[in-house]
Amino acid sequence: MQKINKLLIANRGEIALRIMRSAKEMNIKTVAVFSEADRTSLHVKYADEAICVGPAPSNQSYLVIDNIINAAKTTGADAIHPGYGFLSENPEFATAVENTGLILVGPSAEAMRIMGNKLSAKAAALAYNIPMVPGTDTAISDISEAKKTAINVGFPILIKAAAGGGGKGMRIVNQPEDFEEQMHLAVNEATSAFGDGSVFIERYVTSPRHIEIQILGDKKGNIIHLFERECSIQRRHQKVVEEAPSAVLTPEIREKMGKAAIDVARSVNYTGAGTVEFILDENLNFFFLEMNTRLQVEHPVTEYITGLDLVKEQIRIAEGHEISVKQEDLKILGHSIELRVYAEDPSNNFLPDIGTLQTYKLPSGNGVRVDDGFEEGMDIPIYYDPMIAKLITHGANRADAIAKMKRAIEDYNITGIQTTLAFGKFVMNHEAFVSGKFDTHFVGKYFSPEVLVEKSDEEALIAAIAASLFKNTQKKTTLQTETSTTNNWKKNRTQF
Amino acid sequence: MQKINKLLIANRGEIALRIMRSAKEMNIKTVAVFSEADRTSLHVKYADEAICVGPAPSNQSYLVIDNIINAAKTTGADAIHPGYGFLSENPEFATAVENTGLILVGPSAEAMRIMGNKLSAKAAALAYNIPMVPGTDTAISDISEAKKTAINVGFPILIKAAAGGGGKGMRIVNQPEDFEEQMHLAVNEATSAFGDGSVFIERYVTSPRHIEIQILGDKKGNIIHLFERECSIQRRHQKVVEEAPSAVLTPEIREKMGKAAIDVARSVNYTGAGTVEFILDENLNFFFLEMNTRLQVEHPVTEYITGLDLVKEQIRIAEGHEISVKQEDLKILGHSIELRVYAEDPSNNFLPDIGTLQTYKLPSGNGVRVDDGFEEGMDIPIYYDPMIAKLITHGANRADAIAKMKRAIEDYNITGIQTTLAFGKFVMNHEAFVSGKFDTHFVGKYFSPEVLVEKSDEEALIAAIAASLFKNTQKKTTLQTETSTTNNWKKNRTQF
Repeated sequence: MQKINKLLIANRGEIALRIMRSAKEMNIKTVAVFSEADRTSLHVKYADEAICVGPAPSNQSYLVIDNIINAAKTTGADAIHPGYGFLSENPEFATAVENTGLILVGPSAEAMRIMGNKLSAKAAALAYNIPMVPGTDTAISDISEAKKTAINVGFPILIKAAAGGGGKGMRIVNQPEDFEEQMHLAVNEATSAFGDGSVFIERYVTSPRHIEIQILGDKKGNIIHLFERECSIQRRHQKVVEEAPSAVLTPEIREKMGKAAIDVARSVNYTGAGTVEFILDENLNFFFLEMNTRLQVEHPVTEYITGLDLVKEQIRIAEGHEISVKQEDLKILGHSIELRVYAEDPSNNFLPDIGTLQTYKLPSGNGVRVDDGFEEGMDIPIYYDPMIAKLITHGANRADAIAKMKRAIEDYNITGIQTTLAFGKFVMNHEAFVSGKFDTHFVGKYFSPEVLVEKSDEEALIAAIAASLFKNTQKKTTLQTETSTTNNWKKNRTQF
Repeated sequence: MQKINKLLIANRGEIALRIMRSAKEMNIKTVAVFSEADRTSLHVKYADEAICVGPAPSNQSYLVIDNIINAAKTTGADAIHPGYGFLSENPEFATAVENTGLILVGPSAEAMRIMGNKLSAKAAALAYNIPMVPGTDTAISDISEAKKTAINVGFPILIKAAAGGGGKGMRIVNQPEDFEEQMHLAVNEATSAFGDGSVFIERYVTSPRHIEIQILGDKKGNIIHLFERECSIQRRHQKVVEEAPSAVLTPEIREKMGKAAIDVARSVNYTGAGTVEFILDENLNFFFLEMNTRLQVEHPVTEYITGLDLVKEQIRIAEGHEISVKQEDLKILGHSIELRVYAEDPSNNFLPDIGTLQTYKLPSGNGVRVDDGFEEGMDIPIYYDPMIAKLITHGANRADAIAKMKRAIEDYNITGIQTTLAFGKFVMNHEAFVSGKFDTHFVGKYFSPEVLVEKSDEEALIAAIAASLFKNTQKKTTLQTETSTTNNWKKNRTQF
């Protein structure tokens, strides 16, 4: 057992603040790191100490292993929490932390290394008979051999670069006649993109849902699962809306997936919080996708339905404690939904929309949680992921969680930038989402910018009528106050 | 079954907003009422419609039955939620609402009438053998008869005005020799204060805890309890810190108290949300105190440990639905604490400290909820109860809920007025509270203004050193922004 007294958080934004809050509640001192662009960020103000680790681009600050390690040494931190993104799944970083004699709040470098590569991850999982999407379990580049496999697997099939990610080098082939040509193209694309032309062949799941299982493992060898999260609502292959539990899992499938996730974690002696991602097909068959060896963005929905604090569990596990609950004591409590609030314009292909938060007022009340890293008047920097907040609701059941989310979106008041709030509203009102009958193609199938434009026009009209009838003077005043705050902020900013 | 489509909320401040949020989630339109002093309040801005009901003093606006009823008629509301305070326990109001053909979200006028009077409340409860503090069960004024009773009950005893409240007309008598004199004084005091000299004689509980049971009753005759709240931390006989569950109840006593509370409610065919208050002595004997026939300020701690929304339950019950849960399905989920944030100066005898909220920044994150009715820049009006917010935390257990409360108090940033936040911090750190060994005498026993002064001096020093070492420029800037916001606000206010 090794008590952590001072924790360096090697991250920024909402997740840095979220980790610091739990650390504070555990009487652990916190150290923030920041790039020059983040000097005035909330995570810097919130920490007990803060230290600059380099210029704005991440590869000159947040991603420089030596700078992070030196910051920990300089400030006398005894542990590092990497958050998500940045160095959180980098085995070299994990090794460097270990070699310096510091505690990493995360799994072993070895577990990161194995799960960080699709081939070794698959191989580890196969040893535990985890269901995989039917296809090749090793990478191939021989075309005629590949075609035989494809016919065995059954069309439609998916050709996937072994070293790929984010959809690059992926091709769907609907019939055997097209196979050779598409295989050629896929290998070439993979070679030029990743310097490695080897590919996998898999059955293509036409209506896939993204379901992931949260797991916790401690250093005594206990591993439990904390049920699933459904993350099928994605744009550009990235999650926007997540929920727990899924609207479609039966208790039997939930138990099977939970057991499979525990086995995947066990295959690498996993410690800490991790997530095993699965694809679920239209017949509720599930297949292993990958394991994320870190805290997920969407962890709060799991916190709401289990009553646990995942960051506290991570820290306690890193100190050598056992997980604070037993599998048999866990029960799903209600339903929780998260909406990622991105500084993006949904009506302009979700392109980042940076600027100043002229108005920034949070929703609150029963079953509403906001994790964020900004305040009114702050600028959204261009250098980083444009997620500014996570809006999370918790209800007695799914309908109630949706009702709370709709209310919270309406109560969230952001001006100065476009955000995904309007998109979230569209999702919450869409019949496919409400009924639970959706898959990862939701955005492509149902969403177009026009849907938002019409809606907001109608709303603007109603709002205008209401305002003119009723609250004219008040609204005007509010606006004036906001504008002057912004101007003052801009004036003050020039001092830095 | 009578669907409510438009709900008038006959209240102001945080509770008006809290009720409107739930109504919004249920797709019910809301009508705010406001006094002239509250014209720019948040509850007015938040409602779908708002209507002025008179000048600032409550007895010319929020307490005028006709004005409230007319506001409902004018706006076409089909139901009224009275919140707490104001008209919420007024049987004449309940009758007037009923006679107008509107739905009152609350119990019957009859239930209010019986429970609103100590004698009839006691009589109703006695029919169900509810334990009472040993003493007279009818009011007396004959001195020699009273002395006999007092000796039977056993000293110390308490003499209590039958028509009293707020501690007025109460006298503790420690020994038989002092009885006559104290009885004389009590009768005289009661006569002059309430125009009614009749008194009760009761055993005086030396170390009392205030424990109350939340109940729900529907129009089908179902009544359940939602466990207890402990509200022993009081100043001036008024609650400041509440929690659920209590640190001292055993499951057996909890079940007994729950059953007793249900019986009390059944004695008046109670419908809606209500609270049965008990006094608990040092041997964990409990005695009926009174029943509050309305929603309590501290209801959120019950919401956290049950996962229910009490306002939604109230509305559904008023519509004629059954309670949404069964007694046997309820389980206590973790631990929750509420701190009432009053605009009061704890170091000046908790006197109201009104003014402008120069800075007002909320805490957030996992297990933290704030119910409030103010924003940065707003003035606290002098006319009403000085409670500006309720800070509520929820943890896996009591220690965790306390840790979260300490963190949340630190993160709550209010300047411009004094609040009970500092007092809350004192409570959370006090050994008696942490150990659970406290009673309603907590403030009198342990609190003095000096405790706060020393603490905050020490903190100010540490903060000053930290600031000068580290974040000098940032802090200065923040301060400047805040100041200018305030000034602009003041300028704009003159427009109203």
